[in-house]
Amino acid sequence: MYREQIKVLDCTIRDGGLINNHYFTDEFVRAIYKALSESGIDYMEMGYRCSRELFPPKDFGAWKYCDDDKIREITDGIESNVKLSIMVDAHRVKEQIFAPMDESPIDLIRVASYVKDMDKAIELVNKTHDLGYETTVNIMALSKENEPEIIEALDQLAKSPVDVVYVVDSFGAMYCEPIEYMTKLFKERLPGKEIGVHCHNNQQLAFGNTIEGIIHGANYLDGSLFGIGRGPGNCCLELLIGFLKNPKFKLGPILKAIQDHMLPMREEIEWGYLIPYLITGILNEHPRSAIAIRQTEDKDKYAEFYQNMIDVMD
Amino acid sequence: MYREQIKVLDCTIRDGGLINNHYFTDEFVRAIYKALSESGIDYMEMGYRCSRELFPPKDFGAWKYCDDDKIREITDGIESNVKLSIMVDAHRVKEQIFAPMDESPIDLIRVASYVKDMDKAIELVNKTHDLGYETTVNIMALSKENEPEIIEALDQLAKSPVDVVYVVDSFGAMYCEPIEYMTKLFKERLPGKEIGVHCHNNQQLAFGNTIEGIIHGANYLDGSLFGIGRGPGNCCLELLIGFLKNPKFKLGPILKAIQDHMLPMREEIEWGYLIPYLITGILNEHPRSAIAIRQTEDKDKYAEFYQNMIDVMD
Repeated sequence: MYREQIKVLDCTIRDGGLINNHYFTDEFVRAIYKALSESGIDYMEMGYRCSRELFPPKDFGAWKYCDDDKIREITDGIESNVKLSIMVDAHRVKEQIFAPMDESPIDLIRVASYVKDMDKAIELVNKTHDLGYETTVNIMALSKENEPEIIEALDQLAKSPVDVVYVVDSFGAMYCEPIEYMTKLFKERLPGKEIGVHCHNNQQLAFGNTIEGIIHGANYLDGSLFGIGRGPGNCCLELLIGFLKNPKFKLGPILKAIQDHMLPMREEIEWGYLIPYLITGILNEHPRSAIAIRQTEDKDKYAEFYQNMIDVMD
Repeated sequence: MYREQIKVLDCTIRDGGLINNHYFTDEFVRAIYKALSESGIDYMEMGYRCSRELFPPKDFGAWKYCDDDKIREITDGIESNVKLSIMVDAHRVKEQIFAPMDESPIDLIRVASYVKDMDKAIELVNKTHDLGYETTVNIMALSKENEPEIIEALDQLAKSPVDVVYVVDSFGAMYCEPIEYMTKLFKERLPGKEIGVHCHNNQQLAFGNTIEGIIHGANYLDGSLFGIGRGPGNCCLELLIGFLKNPKFKLGPILKAIQDHMLPMREEIEWGYLIPYLITGILNEHPRSAIAIRQTEDKDKYAEFYQNMIDVMD
């Protein structure tokens, strides 16, 4: 698949940070930045710009806040065309500060939002767009939303200055047909905007669904190295780059980063295809109960967990 | 997805046998048979009916040969509606003997064949069909074949008594669009026959591609417990049963079998998403070089393996 407009965003540090409270070492982040630069990835997402009042620094690593100066420590001295991105949660905003874009190492600000928080998301988009940043809104948990509310949100976004709106399958519950449906709906309601896809791998569909998004016109694609991310993780960047035929992308540096950095990381923290996440995905539920059971001795009691989940939902 | 005609075939013991030379214990095979019976799976594939002359019994377990009496030892005393299947390779036939179907525990004989061996496959189909068996031909390595040869094979099969013809993505190289294309081509050239899909998981697409097959009319679907199979393995049966909505299928017994039997098995033998298999998949190559490197100390030198594969192919 070669389409010049396609942009690939790596969310290794941002989504991966959700499983280690954003405590990546500078060496690790630097190595990933270098690998992504060599492989021609368009954007690297460094983490969140969270409020220190809502999330105290004693509990989180630097990538929960992504201060401009901290980012500069990483990128300093590495030749790169990779643009940098950070994420902000629309429903968790309090005194976050953004420098004007031309004084910041950051290029893109992505606002993660539930449908119900769209007004807050658009306020953030307006503010950061005015500061000169590229912006996206990533609409989470679409598999749980009703179509009239989704359409209302899209119609609001159509009138905003946002550049890209993402279809997000937060619960890894969507099959190819819902992805097709949403991508087409987004394209129809958002003339002139780009569409993105961000998929989770509960059912081993993150890559397949990303392809589905591409086929129906999504140009912004999220992936992470070896699929790292909360719970089952994301679309594997190595799968995506193996599929895309744009010669600007190189697979070799990505494979090297996986063997040198992601395999050791996988020994320390857990993500990927695990049956409890499959179960929450099938049931279209937040992975929190699966994350919880993976911390207990019952982590591999799949049949019992499934029955409990069904009983709770009944 | 609910479509009454859909049949699910579990190939845990057959495809899984390719990674342990078919040495499953009777207890294991019996437990799987019981679980599949409880979960309403349509067919269980026990292994191969190989010639002992070509494959000497000192090197292989019982499921390389699947003698009728051996199968009866497993199924004896277990209440079940599961039909039983065995596989025969069209290009490795020598004095294999089949009892008439009504004297055998086997219901279905599946002939695995490359396009070039289609005459041998059809000879086997004729012979086993005449003995009363249901029959399939599974056309391997389709991603390596030219369309005129595929069409010629399909036109021959259309005139044969075969019941089902499978699209097989042997190398895990096919994306959703080739699966769609092949499924439609098979349907068009094989009027009155059922179409099957058998996918490999090199690129985490086995389940997504199976859904793609279903959408375009395939009714025979292969899966295995926890995806067990050679190299990256197959479409996970648990994913497939989570997706299909026919109330005859039950997910609980499958999850129980995974926790009780497949997790311990995964400690002993390796399968699943591993980067060397991703590499052979992307390159549309047989997994043998990836299987070989996984036996060495260099098993995780992905970038080097990738470069070597490209150099060899150049």
